[in-house]
Amino acid sequence: TKIVFLPGDGVGPEVIGAAEAVLAKVSEQEGFSYAAEHHAFGGAAIDSHGDPFPTETRAACLAADAVILGAVGGPKWAGGSVRPEQGLLAMRSELGTFANLRPATIMPGLEALSPLRPERVTGCDLLIVRELTGGLYFGDREEGSEAALDTCRYSRDEVERIARIAFDAARGRRGKLTSVDKANVLATSRLWRSVVDDMATDYPDVTLDHMLVDAAAMRLVSAPTDFDVILTENLFGDILSDQASAVAGSIGLAPSASLGSGKGGIFEPIHGSAPDIAGQGKANPVGTILSLAMALRHSLDQEAAAVRIETAVSKALADGHGTFDLGCSDSTKEMTAAICERL
Amino acid sequence: TKIVFLPGDGVGPEVIGAAEAVLAKVSEQEGFSYAAEHHAFGGAAIDSHGDPFPTETRAACLAADAVILGAVGGPKWAGGSVRPEQGLLAMRSELGTFANLRPATIMPGLEALSPLRPERVTGCDLLIVRELTGGLYFGDREEGSEAALDTCRYSRDEVERIARIAFDAARGRRGKLTSVDKANVLATSRLWRSVVDDMATDYPDVTLDHMLVDAAAMRLVSAPTDFDVILTENLFGDILSDQASAVAGSIGLAPSASLGSGKGGIFEPIHGSAPDIAGQGKANPVGTILSLAMALRHSLDQEAAAVRIETAVSKALADGHGTFDLGCSDSTKEMTAAICERL
Ligand SMILES: CC(C)[C@H](C(=O)O)[C@@H](O)C(=O)O
Ligand SMILES: CC(C)[C@H](C(=O)O)[C@@H](O)C(=O)O
Repeated sequence: TKIVFLPGDGVGPEVIGAAEAVLAKVSEQEGFSYAAEHHAFGGAAIDSHGDPFPTETRAACLAADAVILGAVGGPKWAGGSVRPEQGLLAMRSELGTFANLRPATIMPGLEALSPLRPERVTGCDLLIVRELTGGLYFGDREEGSEAALDTCRYSRDEVERIARIAFDAARGRRGKLTSVDKANVLATSRLWRSVVDDMATDYPDVTLDHMLVDAAAMRLVSAPTDFDVILTENLFGDILSDQASAVAGSIGLAPSASLGSGKGGIFEPIHGSAPDIAGQGKANPVGTILSLAMALRHSLDQEAAAVRIETAVSKALADGHGTFDLGCSDSTKEMTAAICERL
Repeated sequence: TKIVFLPGDGVGPEVIGAAEAVLAKVSEQEGFSYAAEHHAFGGAAIDSHGDPFPTETRAACLAADAVILGAVGGPKWAGGSVRPEQGLLAMRSELGTFANLRPATIMPGLEALSPLRPERVTGCDLLIVRELTGGLYFGDREEGSEAALDTCRYSRDEVERIARIAFDAARGRRGKLTSVDKANVLATSRLWRSVVDDMATDYPDVTLDHMLVDAAAMRLVSAPTDFDVILTENLFGDILSDQASAVAGSIGLAPSASLGSGKGGIFEPIHGSAPDIAGQGKANPVGTILSLAMALRHSLDQEAAAVRIETAVSKALADGHGTFDLGCSDSTKEMTAAICERL
């Protein structure tokens, strides 16, 4: 089992360090072994290799059973002609990880973390299935200082393969699928909606509805418990998943898994590189630690280890542990230690 | 003074009726006169004229001092080759209303309407300035059942004119402007950001910052009081303004103004046609009534009448009046009467 760690930028190295500590302990407890590698990625790789996704990093990722990523980006590279985010998009595309799973769950007893009133958010347990290798992120562009252009293209096949993941996920959960688009304006959304409708006949046990993205953004605030699985395209998924993680408490807690047709995948917290707090030991490691749990479940066949981690995280939080984004005072290391103790 | 009412679809006629009742009373109180016209628009106009924005409606709108719109759209027309929303987009474009102002305010004493905890939302008073006649809404498209394409184009001029509105608005408020984009991915966002940066030197009294749209969606939930004026492009503005109105209490309360370079404008509630409750007397008329107040302020030179309406709405809500979306039991007519009594 080969696991590639890509610390990346900002708080990335700190949260990756936390995930490694958890993996070391849980692998011992569950009795499995693995080989870990570290590679340059993002802004750090621009600095060291002039390329945010260097050839050796690419080769390592393609050979890995799972890639665990910290975060990329920062003001240092924002103005440059090569940007850290290009490395992330290239990696997603070249590893073929078209399905991005972003759960947003309120852990029982932790309702106080949410900015929403407890009666609105208690029981919230939703999964956003975001298309990750198409749409505006990968369309042709024209850069310019007088005019600029982005294009958004989707094909039937691209919609079908991500919709299948979402229908299957809904089947394994509460059987409810909400497909989010902007079909009253966009051609790609009308295609999206019709493909999803065509597939619904294969899933008579799943209740499908369609929602416009503006209405979805509204309901995620006013009634987040209404959702089970949300299926949407790349950019809408980017926006709604950050919003959903804030609804569930803190973006610092939210994990994600990016999967393709094979077993491998990319696992990363939803939060960004947070350059303002980088190197200060303040970063919340939970999003990355829960992403590691998703890696163990989806790519590494270690369901027991995944559950062990998730349980330990819930316990640590329930015991009042937390980093400063949660209004608590643990450092990244203290929080990680609190989780490791409870594994 | 010529005011054109476009009831449109779903709950549109009900909420427009409410605005007319308020206008009749307030015009008497403030001693001004006006001529009101009603025209077919949206799905209703597809049914009657085969066109969501018929020639006579277009001529009336172009000659009007203000257009007050109910809502458009509904499942009846969703599958058709001509859609109600095309009328709305054509109207916005032909009237040149490139600036869409969407305030989201918690009225003092009405914190209980918000799904957020009072300590998170008390004092929330933000204004979204949304570009309304460019971007993905007006790009070239390719429809298709195997593949589809949308394009997003922005020019320097388009960004400049909307940014000027936002800078000026910030100057007249708390002096803080947050420009929202996705500059780490989109070429149009990088153009957007550089144009806004160039203009900042003209506004040394305004504090400008840039935020990625995913981060903005997160902060609108976790810390909505951090914002003063938000400037953004068409689609991001659509999503964030619905989200912000939900944060502030109910989308049923939220008004909007769409302005161009002249005095006229289009004024409409943020909510949609809500076909599920149409004709039942359940619609919240407040969004439309507050949109009328914006029309009186921005296009009709009746600031006193605008303030009178806003004060009456606050009083009615503070006295416990409200429609079912607010957890209250007033019908549309009862709510309207409660506001009229307090004018
Ligand atoms: C860093 C950025 C390009 C990325 C995205 O927009 O996909 C991030 O926001 C995410 O959601 O993983
Ligand atoms: C009806 C629809 C086309 C419209 C939009 O997306 O602009 C609406 O959602 C709005 O925000 O006014």
